[in-house]
Amino acid sequence: MFDVDKQMEVIKRGAVDLVNEEELRSKLERSIRENKPLRVKLGLDPTAPDLHLGHTVVLQKLKQFQELGHVAIFLIGDFTGMIGDPTGRIETRPALTKDELLVNAETYKKQVFKILDPETTEVRFNSEWFETMNAADMIRLCAQYTMARMMEREDFRNRYQNNLPISIHEFLYPLVQGYDSVALQADIELGGHDQIFNLFVGRVIQRAYGQESQVLVTVPLLEGTDGINKMSKSYGNYVGIDEQPDTMFGKLMSISDELMLKYYELLSDISLDKLRILKEEIHNGSVHPRDAKVNFAKEIITRFHSKEAADAAHENFDKMFRDKEVPEDIEVVTIKKSETGTWLPKLLATIGMVTSTSEGKRMVQQGGVHINGVKVNSEEITLDAVNELTIKVGKRKFKKVIFENES
Amino acid sequence: MFDVDKQMEVIKRGAVDLVNEEELRSKLERSIRENKPLRVKLGLDPTAPDLHLGHTVVLQKLKQFQELGHVAIFLIGDFTGMIGDPTGRIETRPALTKDELLVNAETYKKQVFKILDPETTEVRFNSEWFETMNAADMIRLCAQYTMARMMEREDFRNRYQNNLPISIHEFLYPLVQGYDSVALQADIELGGHDQIFNLFVGRVIQRAYGQESQVLVTVPLLEGTDGINKMSKSYGNYVGIDEQPDTMFGKLMSISDELMLKYYELLSDISLDKLRILKEEIHNGSVHPRDAKVNFAKEIITRFHSKEAADAAHENFDKMFRDKEVPEDIEVVTIKKSETGTWLPKLLATIGMVTSTSEGKRMVQQGGVHINGVKVNSEEITLDAVNELTIKVGKRKFKKVIFENES
Repeated sequence: MFDVDKQMEVIKRGAVDLVNEEELRSKLERSIRENKPLRVKLGLDPTAPDLHLGHTVVLQKLKQFQELGHVAIFLIGDFTGMIGDPTGRIETRPALTKDELLVNAETYKKQVFKILDPETTEVRFNSEWFETMNAADMIRLCAQYTMARMMEREDFRNRYQNNLPISIHEFLYPLVQGYDSVALQADIELGGHDQIFNLFVGRVIQRAYGQESQVLVTVPLLEGTDGINKMSKSYGNYVGIDEQPDTMFGKLMSISDELMLKYYELLSDISLDKLRILKEEIHNGSVHPRDAKVNFAKEIITRFHSKEAADAAHENFDKMFRDKEVPEDIEVVTIKKSETGTWLPKLLATIGMVTSTSEGKRMVQQGGVHINGVKVNSEEITLDAVNELTIKVGKRKFKKVIFENES
Repeated sequence: MFDVDKQMEVIKRGAVDLVNEEELRSKLERSIRENKPLRVKLGLDPTAPDLHLGHTVVLQKLKQFQELGHVAIFLIGDFTGMIGDPTGRIETRPALTKDELLVNAETYKKQVFKILDPETTEVRFNSEWFETMNAADMIRLCAQYTMARMMEREDFRNRYQNNLPISIHEFLYPLVQGYDSVALQADIELGGHDQIFNLFVGRVIQRAYGQESQVLVTVPLLEGTDGINKMSKSYGNYVGIDEQPDTMFGKLMSISDELMLKYYELLSDISLDKLRILKEEIHNGSVHPRDAKVNFAKEIITRFHSKEAADAAHENFDKMFRDKEVPEDIEVVTIKKSETGTWLPKLLATIGMVTSTSEGKRMVQQGGVHINGVKVNSEEITLDAVNELTIKVGKRKFKKVIFENES
């Protein structure tokens, strides 16, 4: 096993919250002393098995724990998934049947094991303990938490203050999640930063059931390729882990240099030492950011496809430039960055590639707009966190856009 | 069966809330049309089986439904009783064991069947449906109610506003009570006026489970013999249903004339027609209030003991006066009524029967103070809702106190 300081450094890499450092240190020391790995829990909702890079940040963190010799517990919340959201009338059908859940879980595992080591991952379902829990146990569980503490959760508080309904069962979900930590005897729970409240509930519930509180480690919500919004399908700024290698390559080459370094920290397997060196090399000019981006894109494509697919995607991307598909005498337009970002159809009209924003929208909808060689799928995206873009509209119209900070 | 108007009149006798008249009318009409009695639910907490007249007001109401031909359901909440109050740590012992609950339930039934007809009473325990309910069903139940509606309950709202803790499981109890109405298919639920919120929850939960909402009928909290505070052991102003006939008689003879008429309405079996006549007779002087009080006291003693016991108690009471235990030349003191009532030890000092309030307290504590022939058990009582009292201190000191309204 690695020493405590080394482990602390790896665990803190890219983390937002660590609650708390002292407890973690003491758990790690005990783990080394007793030669007993820590149990690290990650709960995932089984309703959305179609992952993008944003979902994988926390999986990377879990993998780091595996590499440090700890037990990764991948918990599938099938119990609540089977209840579904029962708001309103009791006849509401469960959101997901047991069969649907199992199918989702399989898809999940297939995707997740591209990151985690299947051999040392404990896959669990919370129906295991909740299906045998009765109503009285549930009431006892609910006695362990007060409404005042529940209202510390921001969305509850806001909804209550704005007279938006909160169903009583919504209070039960954090308690259910907290009880999962009891059943799993979790030493550590991971989650996105937005999950911090629910993870805290687990600490309280564990103490109520006579266990030591888990340590919490959260990771940030990953920014999308636009560098502005969090990565999400609805923003069109995502890189899906099942996407084609060429598409992945194009999307990852389009990100800004700063964002690339953030992605390295959160998504790459390269060690912190190597990352420090890379930053230095970019800083002193001995490595060109474009090459660092190529390496990153290839690492990600290798992870989710293969080494060969990564090489081929790189080749195809270069070819597009080499074969002068993009003209050498491309017109360059400079645009002022706006704080809120510029809406793509508007940008197209502003730089004269279309005659109006409506034509711009139509072109995007018809699949006639490419940015850095990647077809744009959504007219809703906003640009200009990036410094430079090559836009193609239709078959022959090219322009290079440079975004300039207001001075 | 009685016609709807007649039934409505009986149901409304002494009631505080009726939610709502239209629905009740329609349920009664359907009941007559289909010759199907209504199911009338009364839930009682199995932790306090030692009843006084205050508890019996709602039982009288349930009995009236029995007499109208409906089904009385006497529900013992053993499920929640067995959970007890699990606030705090999970290891908290259940408040009551199954055995203790069954003993309490037997005591309860013995007392309750002095009022209700055992033949047509359905005695149920809510563990019947809650013991087989699982955690998922409980979550579904909780989805049927919002926090905002829960916070309409005064004590929840006050505690929240004053930063006093509310455990999440406390929200579950009204829902459990509401679900009882679903399981029992209750047409009507009875309760004390202070239970109105919980009864309302039952209406919502029934609709959520596809049933027609129950009608709610509440009865007032009975005033104690002092005519001021609600009847309660801690105020010393109660008439216990297991008390000795002589004690009952003395206590009931001590009440004011107004309070007697209220007690008649809420506790007596005499019909509304007879009650109307009695009021008229008292008003025009053809019946002396003292005789009406004697009849009422005898009715109550007959209910909880026997006709013979009632006659003997009456005899003993009269003897006390006939044998001049109370002197004919008793000194009469007139005192101004105060709005807040006068504290007994203070009164004793004021009228010169003791030398100080502390002596007054001591006399009461030693059992040396009788009011209208009944020994006073608590020094905390306040007087003067009554117009006239005979007070005995020690063996020989008597005074008659007349309370006069401020003019």
